[in-house]
Amino acid sequence: MPSKFKELKQECYEANMQLNALNLVIYTFGNVSAVDRDRNVFAIKPSGVPYEDLKPENIVILDFDNNIIEGEMRPSSDTKTHSFLYKNWKDIGGVAHTHATYSVAWAQAQKDIPIFGTTHADHLTKDIPCAAPMSDDLIEGNYEHNTGIQILDCFKEKELSYKEVEMVLIGNHGPFTWGKNAAKAVYNSKVLEEVARMAFLTLQINPEAPRLKDSLIKKHYERKHGKNAYYGQK
Amino acid sequence: MPSKFKELKQECYEANMQLNALNLVIYTFGNVSAVDRDRNVFAIKPSGVPYEDLKPENIVILDFDNNIIEGEMRPSSDTKTHSFLYKNWKDIGGVAHTHATYSVAWAQAQKDIPIFGTTHADHLTKDIPCAAPMSDDLIEGNYEHNTGIQILDCFKEKELSYKEVEMVLIGNHGPFTWGKNAAKAVYNSKVLEEVARMAFLTLQINPEAPRLKDSLIKKHYERKHGKNAYYGQK
Amino acid sequence: MPSKFKELKQECYEANMQLNALNLVIYTFGNVSAVDRDRNVFAIKPSGVPYEDLKPENIVILDFDNNIIEGEMRPSSDTKTHSFLYKNWKDIGGVAHTHATYSVAWAQAQKDIPIFGTTHADHLTKDIPCAAPMSDDLIEGNYEHNTGIQILDCFKEKELSYKEVEMVLIGNHGPFTWGKNAAKAVYNSKVLEEVARMAFLTLQINPEAPRLKDSLIKKHYERKHGKNAYYGQK
Amino acid sequence: MPSKFKELKQECYEANMQLNALNLVIYTFGNVSAVDRDRNVFAIKPSGVPYEDLKPENIVILDFDNNIIEGEMRPSSDTKTHSFLYKNWKDIGGVAHTHATYSVAWAQAQKDIPIFGTTHADHLTKDIPCAAPMSDDLIEGNYEHNTGIQILDCFKEKELSYKEVEMVLIGNHGPFTWGKNAAKAVYNSKVLEEVARMAFLTLQINPEAPRLKDSLIKKHYERKHGKNAYYGQK
Repeated sequence: MPSKFKELKQECYEANMQLNALNLVIYTFGNVSAVDRDRNVFAIKPSGVPYEDLKPENIVILDFDNNIIEGEMRPSSDTKTHSFLYKNWKDIGGVAHTHATYSVAWAQAQKDIPIFGTTHADHLTKDIPCAAPMSDDLIEGNYEHNTGIQILDCFKEKELSYKEVEMVLIGNHGPFTWGKNAAKAVYNSKVLEEVARMAFLTLQINPEAPRLKDSLIKKHYERKHGKNAYYGQK
Repeated sequence: MPSKFKELKQECYEANMQLNALNLVIYTFGNVSAVDRDRNVFAIKPSGVPYEDLKPENIVILDFDNNIIEGEMRPSSDTKTHSFLYKNWKDIGGVAHTHATYSVAWAQAQKDIPIFGTTHADHLTKDIPCAAPMSDDLIEGNYEHNTGIQILDCFKEKELSYKEVEMVLIGNHGPFTWGKNAAKAVYNSKVLEEVARMAFLTLQINPEAPRLKDSLIKKHYERKHGKNAYYGQK
Repeated sequence: MPSKFKELKQECYEANMQLNALNLVIYTFGNVSAVDRDRNVFAIKPSGVPYEDLKPENIVILDFDNNIIEGEMRPSSDTKTHSFLYKNWKDIGGVAHTHATYSVAWAQAQKDIPIFGTTHADHLTKDIPCAAPMSDDLIEGNYEHNTGIQILDCFKEKELSYKEVEMVLIGNHGPFTWGKNAAKAVYNSKVLEEVARMAFLTLQINPEAPRLKDSLIKKHYERKHGKNAYYGQK
Repeated sequence: MPSKFKELKQECYEANMQLNALNLVIYTFGNVSAVDRDRNVFAIKPSGVPYEDLKPENIVILDFDNNIIEGEMRPSSDTKTHSFLYKNWKDIGGVAHTHATYSVAWAQAQKDIPIFGTTHADHLTKDIPCAAPMSDDLIEGNYEHNTGIQILDCFKEKELSYKEVEMVLIGNHGPFTWGKNAAKAVYNSKVLEEVARMAFLTLQINPEAPRLKDSLIKKHYERKHGKNAYYGQK
């Protein structure tokens, strides 16, 4: 009997393979999921499977309480973070997690990535937040679930909207990104990695480099995302 | 009916694809245009189209007042900067814009790239200028047109000739380069990126590294571009 | 007459080729060996043979006293370090040595690599040790054998277990890694190189970056390697 | 009539193409030559020809006084440096020049590359010398010929042997390397670039990193190049 989640699995599979093609992961250091809002399920990479062995039929289907709906394999060890985000943020369609080098370096440095230029402002108007490491009891508890809490707390504290800021660094760990679908979540992982690299180099060249000024932040963001946007095709 | 701009579109298409092949862009972070001086039109990449989907027939033809002459798609959001340069600088045949990593890092650091060696002097005799970010009212106004003004003002203030210095960094944004045709503009983008990387590393190794001395600047530039040049084939 | 070590040679050959495919070596700057515990022999790359010329039948078979059991070619110049490790550490099945760039940079800097994040903690709970350069008389003596002693002394002094910490930097030289088989040793070389790069960047961004806290070290290591591990497939 | 230099041209052609394959050059930023000591001629890349267009028959043959013996094209603009080295150093068979990134960065920083590790000591026992920029009158004179003088003066002053130290950085310019044939000269360019990168990273991690101690320098060099060498095949 053919799976009724065939398309969802395919979307998830392709996004995971893209993570690899974009040089955002080595070995199994990353995972992407895709949601089906009508059926309240999401598809995610199985844990620890190398990209060269991954097949669409290996993708695991779960509900938002982490019950496996379909699939023979164990889902990604980060599954509970994905489900927590889907449950709390109704408008996202995909989530990606990587250990991409420059993103991880900023996360390990426990620093927000300052907005230094228009490459950044083309995508978001805020510094890219780095969530503080969580408390010991949360770590020892339901860790991956609590990573989701940590992200939401960070967004609350910094007064950020997940609809505008589609990325976060988990202190000492690495990035999570999301978007309207799995492909957009992966796109955001790539953009984050590139922006992280540019910001690193900027500070090496000029440790006093100023943040981008408000008028330029607004201009670049609005021309791409505002109601009178003129970037891209109609 | 076949387009009367077929060759121009093809030149523009190939130069844009080259930007991608040379690793100067990810996704849609760049654009190249090519001019036809006899017909006072230029060809430019459509906005937001990924390189893997781009076809020669997608290229948009405009006049120097930004009227679309031929093409179904919206032109690059940076179009008005290109047209402004073509209108003011009669001897250029192509313009390229990228968000290449090291070039952007210097632009974000708001620093001119000092001339440290012969790789630089083989191409130009001056520091690579970084134009200051523009004033808020210019940003809020006709932004991309004003980016062109910003470039010309920078060249005026620093007493540079666009015929010798075929590249500029826009503070907080990234590089624009130009040349006798679109391929040369792309070549200059690649050279700029490499020179930007070398200059970054030079200062990391020796923060007191001296500028190249005048005799060497002159020698290397003249042997490639002077009237008794002996670099390349006759 | 077919070799009775055909499979062992093939395992060793594939692991050496993987070193090259993973960009961990240029030219002949590395070697991998694989052990057969039942027969007390190991297979190792011949010395100075470029990867593009290497064939499975070139692999050399030796016993743990460095006597050649099979093979026409001279074994890797580092052979005695490999045999020393096999002799002393009964549970390892493969050893790899590279001159990978970031690993060598830390070795040349004579610094342990601090544990800054979960990428590191997914693999080991300690800083990656850098063994001090050995004394002049050991260098002038049986050098490669003594490199093995140097590694064991380092593990003794720092109270490390080779079963948990599967990697070491030799001061001024470069990394040795090991594992249950040759492929795992190569995997550890790649992970070490990536962790070395992340740690370098972390300190560039924040020279005061704190070590990962104990609860997170434990959590990440246990979820992958503990008795209730839930990373990977059962 | 077939060329009597067919083999020499082919050797030179292949070494030039290798420069490109090893990512040591972009565009036309490099050249390699090969000598025929019996006939007192050498073969060199034509000036300014992109690697993708280069053919063996384009290679130019000259004598040591820079007279063209065979070839339709203009030889590399650096030809006189090559001929000067062949004329003065009787035991070299090939010369390579690149603008490889890390090598150029050290040349622009006007610093010798300190010997920090065994990767360096496997190839030479000295710091890699950086020749001081030449005086203005030498630059304005027979520049490329004088670059050769500059290299010889540097080796004299630092008491180096070209037979052991097969590489030099020209201050503000970039590397020249040589060897028993053109392929070895290219090999040395690649090794230099990698050693330059490792030394840069070493100093970033530890600005106080010590030079490699003499016993290790001697050990590594001797095991590869000494009379009892045991690296490589007999």
